[in-house]
Amino acid sequence: MSRPLQPLSAETLAFLTPYLPPKDSSSATPHITLTYAQTLDSSLSLPGKQIALSSPQTKVLTHHLRLHHDTILVGVTTANVDDPGLNSRIEGATLEQQPRPIILDPRGRWNGHSGSRVIQTAKRGEGKAPWVVTGELQGRPTWVEALEQVGGRWLQVPLEEDSRWTWSGLKKAFGKEGVTSVMVEGGAAVIDGILREEGETGGIVDSLIVTVCPGFLGGEAVRVGPKFTGGRGLKTKDSAWGIVGNDAVLASRVGGEF
Amino acid sequence: MSRPLQPLSAETLAFLTPYLPPKDSSSATPHITLTYAQTLDSSLSLPGKQIALSSPQTKVLTHHLRLHHDTILVGVTTANVDDPGLNSRIEGATLEQQPRPIILDPRGRWNGHSGSRVIQTAKRGEGKAPWVVTGELQGRPTWVEALEQVGGRWLQVPLEEDSRWTWSGLKKAFGKEGVTSVMVEGGAAVIDGILREEGETGGIVDSLIVTVCPGFLGGEAVRVGPKFTGGRGLKTKDSAWGIVGNDAVLASRVGGEF
Repeated sequence: MSRPLQPLSAETLAFLTPYLPPKDSSSATPHITLTYAQTLDSSLSLPGKQIALSSPQTKVLTHHLRLHHDTILVGVTTANVDDPGLNSRIEGATLEQQPRPIILDPRGRWNGHSGSRVIQTAKRGEGKAPWVVTGELQGRPTWVEALEQVGGRWLQVPLEEDSRWTWSGLKKAFGKEGVTSVMVEGGAAVIDGILREEGETGGIVDSLIVTVCPGFLGGEAVRVGPKFTGGRGLKTKDSAWGIVGNDAVLASRVGGEF
Repeated sequence: MSRPLQPLSAETLAFLTPYLPPKDSSSATPHITLTYAQTLDSSLSLPGKQIALSSPQTKVLTHHLRLHHDTILVGVTTANVDDPGLNSRIEGATLEQQPRPIILDPRGRWNGHSGSRVIQTAKRGEGKAPWVVTGELQGRPTWVEALEQVGGRWLQVPLEEDSRWTWSGLKKAFGKEGVTSVMVEGGAAVIDGILREEGETGGIVDSLIVTVCPGFLGGEAVRVGPKFTGGRGLKTKDSAWGIVGNDAVLASRVGGEF
């Protein structure tokens, strides 16, 4: 069991607050926060190695952010490789405050079972029961029973062109389910996908919060590297940097080309 | 003609000072500072596009750093593509204070001539005359005359294994020429090469100063991505972050694996 985390410092809280999802919103689609921690060479992890990239203080920041979102989303690769708990460990957090975990699993490849951390966390009442979103599948995935036993849901959202979802489509689907905010945490494929769509059509990412950790993971690492068509790049705006522990944290909005 | 830059703010100066080369050193090899500006996705530039990544304030920081180094080094690709002046534009900088430009050009591919900015800058007395370092070449490069007319030098340093230099070899060669500090500015191939050797054998980089600019350049950009063998990564130590304009600047030493 991991020990609970102390609340965020007042200074970091003040820095983050303008980028949190609005408390009351009449929007039909959720506020999307994209957030992750990377090295200077925009790497997230080394395959097969457990690395603590970010400082303890930035970990608290992440868990604080989780408490301020309705849902927290990861891709199926992250769910399979890391077996994450996807709850907030801030001391005193109530189940009501916990974000709903969402696993994006277009082809039903999640390896979840009754022992998975996200299921166990829900069973203990330390996090909400997850939703697993797939495309329209032929069969019934092996994890459905374990999921439904803790009150989780299997949602089927039809894939679009190229047998993938668009984020604009996902935003609408989540909005219909009553989701008011989504904290997208990774992994690399999910981050690249959302940034690419933001860079090409816009209107997806409402807040971008990136922790930059000193150091390099090198050529074998899992890296963020969005591929925009036409070499246009993606600018940020209303940016603020915070120094948190050993890390620099960027909080911003996005929009505009270089 | 670019206008002169005002000196650095006292706050940024205090942040940078511990990472500047020592004023008096009995070392046989120069202090190496690796410095560059990148986006979040560790990109330096988009081919064929002039982009101002960093804030005006971080530009001042770079020109301040230049004044505190004996030499400033770029690879031949950067010299050919950007045609840089490689001097410091801090207001009131004397020729004595200016760094010596060094172009690393293993195979004599520099496209320099009497009109090149680095030659013109030397001719106007706004910068020192450059050194161009090549391997042992058969013929005499076309640029030698223009170089020597402004007092520059062509240095031949034999390539080592795999027809390339090692940075430990270059450090020794520069030390023999009396160079006390080298500010390595780019481009991507030079940065990746020096980081790879630092990660694999250590002892190369004395200071690392990286400006991180908000935004993404995407898949068509020139990116920093050192390739260490064996997935070890490269840690930093004694790190400090400074917020300069819209950018976060990391100043640190390097060493250790993840």
